Amino acid sequence: MGQRARRAGRELAVLTAGQKRAILLAMADGLDGAEETILAANALDVAGARERGLGTAMVDRLTLNHERVAAMARGVREVAELPDPVGEVLASWERPNGLRMEKVRVPIGVIGIIFESRPNVTSDAAALCFKSGNATILRGGSEAIHSNRAIAAVLQESGERAGLPAWSIQLVGNTDRESVRHLAEMDRYLDLIIPRGGKGLIETVVSLARMPVIKHYDGICHVYVDRAADVGMAVEIIVNAKAQKPGVCNAAETLLVDEAIAERFFAVAVPALRAKGVELRGDEWLCGHYPDEVRRAEEKDWDTEHLDLILNVRTVRGMDEAMDHIAAHGSRHSECIVTEDAEAAERFLAMVDSAAVFWNASTRFNDGGEFGFGCEIGISTDKLHARGPMGLPELTIYKYLVRGSGQVRG
Amino acid sequence: MGQRARRAGRELAVLTAGQKRAILLAMADGLDGAEETILAANALDVAGARERGLGTAMVDRLTLNHERVAAMARGVREVAELPDPVGEVLASWERPNGLRMEKVRVPIGVIGIIFESRPNVTSDAAALCFKSGNATILRGGSEAIHSNRAIAAVLQESGERAGLPAWSIQLVGNTDRESVRHLAEMDRYLDLIIPRGGKGLIETVVSLARMPVIKHYDGICHVYVDRAADVGMAVEIIVNAKAQKPGVCNAAETLLVDEAIAERFFAVAVPALRAKGVELRGDEWLCGHYPDEVRRAEEKDWDTEHLDLILNVRTVRGMDEAMDHIAAHGSRHSECIVTEDAEAAERFLAMVDSAAVFWNASTRFNDGGEFGFGCEIGISTDKLHARGPMGLPELTIYKYLVRGSGQVRG
Repeated sequence: MGQRARRAGRELAVLTAGQKRAILLAMADGLDGAEETILAANALDVAGARERGLGTAMVDRLTLNHERVAAMARGVREVAELPDPVGEVLASWERPNGLRMEKVRVPIGVIGIIFESRPNVTSDAAALCFKSGNATILRGGSEAIHSNRAIAAVLQESGERAGLPAWSIQLVGNTDRESVRHLAEMDRYLDLIIPRGGKGLIETVVSLARMPVIKHYDGICHVYVDRAADVGMAVEIIVNAKAQKPGVCNAAETLLVDEAIAERFFAVAVPALRAKGVELRGDEWLCGHYPDEVRRAEEKDWDTEHLDLILNVRTVRGMDEAMDHIAAHGSRHSECIVTEDAEAAERFLAMVDSAAVFWNASTRFNDGGEFGFGCEIGISTDKLHARGPMGLPELTIYKYLVRGSGQVRG
Repeated sequence: MGQRARRAGRELAVLTAGQKRAILLAMADGLDGAEETILAANALDVAGARERGLGTAMVDRLTLNHERVAAMARGVREVAELPDPVGEVLASWERPNGLRMEKVRVPIGVIGIIFESRPNVTSDAAALCFKSGNATILRGGSEAIHSNRAIAAVLQESGERAGLPAWSIQLVGNTDRESVRHLAEMDRYLDLIIPRGGKGLIETVVSLARMPVIKHYDGICHVYVDRAADVGMAVEIIVNAKAQKPGVCNAAETLLVDEAIAERFFAVAVPALRAKGVELRGDEWLCGHYPDEVRRAEEKDWDTEHLDLILNVRTVRGMDEAMDHIAAHGSRHSECIVTEDAEAAERFLAMVDSAAVFWNASTRFNDGGEFGFGCEIGISTDKLHARGPMGLPELTIYKYLVRGSGQVRG
């Protein structure tokens, strides 16, 4: 599989933007046309999951229907219409000896995607990797194997009829744990692995992988309400950051409030958050002032991605204490300061080391679509290559082209 | 050490360009001033190496003298004068909802450097990592431990007197193998490891590391002489690429020649290469035509980085066969085509997947200094984050700053 992917990668790297667009549109049509086959395969997975007693949330993530297949096809069409990142000239300059230097964007090569449950990842990831000129080796979970096989087959067949190089998109048939180890050791053939799934899966891949891994770990995101905050705005932002969609990585988990504004702020914030059904876990100050609304936070709460209507709340003595808390407990995903004091805001923006730092805006905006990227393969919590929302350019690298006239080194 | 480095990293990230320049100049003066101490420490290492019977090349790499200490100081001064990459705005745009987006260059955080023998790496790596705002944890080999300790102490002391945050540059005192494992598992505190040394060291780090590793593997570099090459230029390029400095990674190891030009080319090239003392290992064609000058290459030669005056030579049936050979045997470091045919050259530049692809210029130019970067920490053979010569910008990453006026997500 690795050798085939390498070979496909060489052909993919030189496809034109127009060829790739046509192939993606053919894949999308293929998905629409094969809805029945895909749903039949999916029914086997769903029946299997029920038999094995998987939870309803898990079964829901696994289940496809007309709308979800249509959404997959729509996703592929959207990727087709995005600008092609490959070939972009990132820099060019000339050296005193006459060498003409050019730094151009090229595909990474072969990308492995190891994912769990949601079968739509098969088409999302394949479309993004293909658009950026990469060959893809997909390894989904056993619970979705029939669906994944059906989707991959449709993408391959409909794509190849439109000119997709053979072996550009491959699905690992084997879904046991050994297949993860096997992929993770194929550093000769895989240039990058992106695990998409829970912390356990990511940990396993990180421990085994010999090639680079881009991780999309959890978001322990903070909102800091500065002493100079507009209370109304601060309440709106924390309610949105926590409660608009609590199960996602860019939702806030912890609220830090300068004690200079705490009384005024919480008088509005506590009822607003409670009205949204948010459970509050607070420090001594909070529990003292709101004994009925707030229960005492445990130490481990500060390090927990609740992904639920639970919010940790703490007062701090000024911004430095807030930033210390963030450095100690945050996951460097998304942090926000609410303040009318521009100087304080700029200091927070400069000093907080997170993929995205917000001033007077909800952490929920850390998202490829909201950034205007048109798509994302995930939100990287790593600090190498790609940070924050990963769109098409983040699935590429560069090479240097050097044009001379016989120069040799003296 | 990891916690201290993290703390130092936060302070380093907000130093101004002027502060960093002053600190680096103080470090350089410190090195000059401490020459005697450094040479005394180095003498212990050299004596130890002789006692343990290390080879002369190894002892030479280890040995410091007045010139080498002065060169270290000069290197630090050069880094001081380079532009500061931190804070550069890489992109900025506004979203329809009024969010002002900014992508700015920031330090990676804490970088681990694991290296062997040459004690000058201590000051080179520390200066580059510091200039780019990173905290550094250095782990050198046992053979150079006295030298490394002395150099690190000078950098710390002279730097701190000029405002270097404490713990910005730390040297691991322990040089056993366990200390490599320990560093490689510190993914909570180290954002990146760069191993500098032989293949064995890199392999060990790659196998153990839980954080990203940027590898500087070997260069199995190719020169392809196209049928439309200028023979004189082609000969000059291959002689330079092979013989000007054979022990480095951007030297050529294999020469591929289109059979359409082979007779004309080799009539000049074989004597020219032999005159430089280059041993030729060839295919059937070469051995048939030059039985006295060329011995038969073994299969493993094509995959070997000789780092010596040995050149593999092969005729091919056109460019596609050359590119197939490169894809099968190259290490994606540096490749060159010599031709007067611009169309052929552009096809080669587009299709060959190497960090640097040259047209009519020696592979020896794949070098940070020759690219105009002013410095390099190495030449990455990886395809993530940094490819080719790694200068200061390659030791940074970015974060997104998002400035709003109360936006929440609907």
